Amino acid sequence: MNKVKVGIVGLGRLGKQHAENIAFRIPNAELTAVCSIVEKEIAEVQKNWGIKYGYTDYDEMLENKELDAIFISSPSSFHCEQIEKALKAEFHVFSEKPLGLYLNEAEKVAKVVNECRDKQVFMLGFMRRYDKSYVYAKEKIEEGAIGKPILIRCYGLDPTSAIGSFLKFAKNNYSGGLFLDMAIHDLDLARWYLGSEAERVWAIGDSYEYPEFKEINDAETGVALVKFKNGAMGIFVADRNCAHGYHIETEIIGTRGTLRIGTIPEKNLVTVFDHTGAIRECSEGFLERFEQAYLSEVEEFINCIIEKSQPKVTVEDGVNSTALAYACKESFETGKLITL
Amino acid sequence: MNKVKVGIVGLGRLGKQHAENIAFRIPNAELTAVCSIVEKEIAEVQKNWGIKYGYTDYDEMLENKELDAIFISSPSSFHCEQIEKALKAEFHVFSEKPLGLYLNEAEKVAKVVNECRDKQVFMLGFMRRYDKSYVYAKEKIEEGAIGKPILIRCYGLDPTSAIGSFLKFAKNNYSGGLFLDMAIHDLDLARWYLGSEAERVWAIGDSYEYPEFKEINDAETGVALVKFKNGAMGIFVADRNCAHGYHIETEIIGTRGTLRIGTIPEKNLVTVFDHTGAIRECSEGFLERFEQAYLSEVEEFINCIIEKSQPKVTVEDGVNSTALAYACKESFETGKLITL
Amino acid sequence: MNKVKVGIVGLGRLGKQHAENIAFRIPNAELTAVCSIVEKEIAEVQKNWGIKYGYTDYDEMLENKELDAIFISSPSSFHCEQIEKALKAEFHVFSEKPLGLYLNEAEKVAKVVNECRDKQVFMLGFMRRYDKSYVYAKEKIEEGAIGKPILIRCYGLDPTSAIGSFLKFAKNNYSGGLFLDMAIHDLDLARWYLGSEAERVWAIGDSYEYPEFKEINDAETGVALVKFKNGAMGIFVADRNCAHGYHIETEIIGTRGTLRIGTIPEKNLVTVFDHTGAIRECSEGFLERFEQAYLSEVEEFINCIIEKSQPKVTVEDGVNSTALAYACKESFETGKLITL
Amino acid sequence: MNKVKVGIVGLGRLGKQHAENIAFRIPNAELTAVCSIVEKEIAEVQKNWGIKYGYTDYDEMLENKELDAIFISSPSSFHCEQIEKALKAEFHVFSEKPLGLYLNEAEKVAKVVNECRDKQVFMLGFMRRYDKSYVYAKEKIEEGAIGKPILIRCYGLDPTSAIGSFLKFAKNNYSGGLFLDMAIHDLDLARWYLGSEAERVWAIGDSYEYPEFKEINDAETGVALVKFKNGAMGIFVADRNCAHGYHIETEIIGTRGTLRIGTIPEKNLVTVFDHTGAIRECSEGFLERFEQAYLSEVEEFINCIIEKSQPKVTVEDGVNSTALAYACKESFETGKLITL
Repeated sequence: MNKVKVGIVGLGRLGKQHAENIAFRIPNAELTAVCSIVEKEIAEVQKNWGIKYGYTDYDEMLENKELDAIFISSPSSFHCEQIEKALKAEFHVFSEKPLGLYLNEAEKVAKVVNECRDKQVFMLGFMRRYDKSYVYAKEKIEEGAIGKPILIRCYGLDPTSAIGSFLKFAKNNYSGGLFLDMAIHDLDLARWYLGSEAERVWAIGDSYEYPEFKEINDAETGVALVKFKNGAMGIFVADRNCAHGYHIETEIIGTRGTLRIGTIPEKNLVTVFDHTGAIRECSEGFLERFEQAYLSEVEEFINCIIEKSQPKVTVEDGVNSTALAYACKESFETGKLITL
Repeated sequence: MNKVKVGIVGLGRLGKQHAENIAFRIPNAELTAVCSIVEKEIAEVQKNWGIKYGYTDYDEMLENKELDAIFISSPSSFHCEQIEKALKAEFHVFSEKPLGLYLNEAEKVAKVVNECRDKQVFMLGFMRRYDKSYVYAKEKIEEGAIGKPILIRCYGLDPTSAIGSFLKFAKNNYSGGLFLDMAIHDLDLARWYLGSEAERVWAIGDSYEYPEFKEINDAETGVALVKFKNGAMGIFVADRNCAHGYHIETEIIGTRGTLRIGTIPEKNLVTVFDHTGAIRECSEGFLERFEQAYLSEVEEFINCIIEKSQPKVTVEDGVNSTALAYACKESFETGKLITL
Repeated sequence: MNKVKVGIVGLGRLGKQHAENIAFRIPNAELTAVCSIVEKEIAEVQKNWGIKYGYTDYDEMLENKELDAIFISSPSSFHCEQIEKALKAEFHVFSEKPLGLYLNEAEKVAKVVNECRDKQVFMLGFMRRYDKSYVYAKEKIEEGAIGKPILIRCYGLDPTSAIGSFLKFAKNNYSGGLFLDMAIHDLDLARWYLGSEAERVWAIGDSYEYPEFKEINDAETGVALVKFKNGAMGIFVADRNCAHGYHIETEIIGTRGTLRIGTIPEKNLVTVFDHTGAIRECSEGFLERFEQAYLSEVEEFINCIIEKSQPKVTVEDGVNSTALAYACKESFETGKLITL
Repeated sequence: MNKVKVGIVGLGRLGKQHAENIAFRIPNAELTAVCSIVEKEIAEVQKNWGIKYGYTDYDEMLENKELDAIFISSPSSFHCEQIEKALKAEFHVFSEKPLGLYLNEAEKVAKVVNECRDKQVFMLGFMRRYDKSYVYAKEKIEEGAIGKPILIRCYGLDPTSAIGSFLKFAKNNYSGGLFLDMAIHDLDLARWYLGSEAERVWAIGDSYEYPEFKEINDAETGVALVKFKNGAMGIFVADRNCAHGYHIETEIIGTRGTLRIGTIPEKNLVTVFDHTGAIRECSEGFLERFEQAYLSEVEEFINCIIEKSQPKVTVEDGVNSTALAYACKESFETGKLITL
């Protein structure tokens, strides 16, 4: 097969990283079209990287039959609609998380995905499942290294330095809130590692330093405690105000051992010793921490297209993670225990 | 003042450690009497350490007016009654945690403590407050190093190696269960670091590897999520089945920084490198981990008697921690959200 | 400019990794020819990756004027001759370390490199200079984070698991010995970080577990202590028998602070807790540890060709590192202090 | 036996710590006399701690036959003479390291120690041998955990904060220099762990930030490389200018594994996360790092007196460590390789 020709929608920070990976680091893919509502972004990318097509209108891009696959990294509220349109136009589709901001739209899109399953590849951007350390932990668990997993603890902490841009974005775009936007990766990971779906949840949270979160009905920091159907438990901490950087930590406690991934969100292998002490500097953001995973997930998507297979992350992973995130959100908003 | 003459009741693992500290490591104290229902324990300690008096009957010991202070390290269900008797007999009293297994008995004893307050010292064995690392964290917080504390996460994990002896003990003595027996230290620490009392709690847990826990209506592993009155949050994990040892870890997340105490429960400063990797061996039990704290708390108690002051840990700390532990237990047993 | 067309000689472990990187991960390069004395290796690579030309004779490959650049990853004893030939045939040249096994041949080849400097790119494979952590440390030093560097300590420890294949190789191919073959990277790094050349050296070492090293006049483990011209000091430990894996650690002590790179040769971000303790598993070999650096150095080489510039690593770095390695070797063999 | 009555000479930082330990933390010992040339120090200690006798003259103290044992923590240049006098006056003797500043005086005193061996206890203050982590490492080695030890690396780094007081002291008192004063503990440890004596040494060093060290013919930072008689190797780094604190690190590399003690000189179990990163604060000085060891060695000394045995550290350990330190010093001063 020839190179897979890709059109991408959304050229924000992550969208641009995906675009760059497709253009320069995936030998079997070619970035053929870019789409954004910001004309300057299109012009820049087309010029610098020599991209053939540029669109400000998503529907127009879908009419370009030179393309094989569509990459969606637009704001979350557009995902469901754009996925459905692209699938119906017979493209392979990669969409950033979350699948959707509401359970019913997620379920609706899942139906479409499953109808196209025989001919088209659909993949959701749960990139952590492609991070070397997370993959290693999964293998360890499957080898039985920690017995049966009974408790997972997940930290998804965004750096304080990113608060300004997040608040600016969130005032104009409904992000879904802390649990749908931030914790969604962790909720998916918990399902993956525990091999079970959530049953009951209690979530709490508040705005502690930045009252702006309260103004948009969101939380600065939140915690959810989840009981899973197989009896296992999950603790989820999501936070927008982490002083030391981008801290993604996951712990899986089993009956015979425990795994921790990213106990300290080390930037690299350097330890600095000065009058402060022994310092491990920390990761600054998701593009730094998950550079390898963002590349590997796209490799998987392109390979699936070439080899006519489906990725390990399924649309049901998207639906169920969204359902759990939504339950967390509801519990946080009502103060009640929620049964899924 | 002359040496403080101490009588101790209970010569189990911890009781014996207290006895040894009083006998040999506190210059201003003298171990004058020991009391236990196990005659052999008394005989052994009296002979090896040259202790003047031995009793199998607690009331009899209280009649010995040569004594200045009573140390209580008997099973938890005896604490309240023994504290009350010793106070009424005009002794200074040190009692192991928890203050009591039921809220009403804890409140009753608190009343007695407060009535004797002018003349007698009362102290509860929340030894972690005397551990160097915990004290250091408290100072850091008070200096403002992490801004305002908003989330505390506490792990109290007992080693798998201790399960056998615990189950044997728990079948004959009501321990109060996982939250009153194990988590009580963490609940006290949370109140201390957050400077607030609990408002609502949801607790879950189960028996995963050892069905015996279910048989005694207890949990092998449990998690409680707590909302505090000042808006802060607490996560408490208690566990009887920790493969790698005795793992006590506490994390305090603030608006400007975070502190972690005991991320890895390091046995000492040695790292072993072998074909397995780079290994930090872990602490085996509470006597190993808190050796210094167990000594320091007794020094504080004896100093308070000599200097006619009261320790920083108050009986209200005991009452409120018991109330919170009891709420966790109730939530775990009923599955409901509990408001304190 | 079009893609840089590369021919590579040597398809051992590292050679094959270079070949794969050029073929699949460097968008501006194309792997056009492979050369090896092992016909099977050529056939395999040509078939699997679709490589146009295959040679068993190096001179023959140099006659292929379709090529722009030659990559040398043959055994060390061939480097000097192959570099010289390729340069004289007007190709750009990348050579694996060391530049040469003897100082005079290294100096001779340096002369040729410098004569071709205006038209041809020459680069030596000191890949650590392209590793993110090493680059970060260099930047820190240049920012003044540790004051003036006064002592560097370098560990270059090969895993015990690789001893068998090394001894098999070394019996048939003169590797140059522990200091020229293993320590050469560290000697180069020391010069880079300290900004000075070596003055005096004492080196010792022995065979402790594997007498075969003595039989080939080499050491299993060796240590060199070096005084540099600017007064700084260097400690170099090279070892073929490291039980816990591939351990590359570098420490730079300055007058105001210290940097350590790779204190523990962590395989990934996972910590495993089991009955053994808290375990960081270790890196297994150079391809695992330096995956990113091996790719980045080739990117630099290809970019230099395209942009008509020269890489930061110069042929003098090769000559001087070889001179120092040779002095270590001489000191180890004679037991004397050697002045450079 | 009754309590061992101790007289101490020298009330500097360490002397005072010893005095306090004897007075308050060793139940079988009694601090009966203190001796110092500083009258104020005597008065203070006598008054605050209720010590019976105070002397400004050492010989006078030795006439007090109420005493059982003499503790020597005066400046190093007095050790040999004071040890000899105390032994001849029939006291048990504990002396701080080093045994002596010159090999001949050390050998002379060793002779006296051996003559008194049957009746009197002599012990040298190599306290690291009593530190829990060092003891643990020794046990591991004896169990065969790392195979045969072949390389030891020792860091003895004093904090920058202590330079002022050291330079002030060293201008008036001959300390013996970096190797005899600082590295002596490490040289002893190396002999202990390797089970062998030194054969050849090369030592280098310089003054990098503080020219005052050169003025007193000493080094700010020095490194010695030592070949031992059994083929093992030793690397010794001694430094007066460590920005991050008091850094004592020891690594023992064996044929089957490696042990590291104090990789990071952690102050306690707290990790601080702030905008700087994840910080382990460091130990500030020897009294903080070796608090437990300083107490344990005195316990051993007192127990030896009571049980009529001899401590594991012998006077030969003192002689041989001094001989090696002296060889390091000579090599540093002459630039030559020294054979012992």
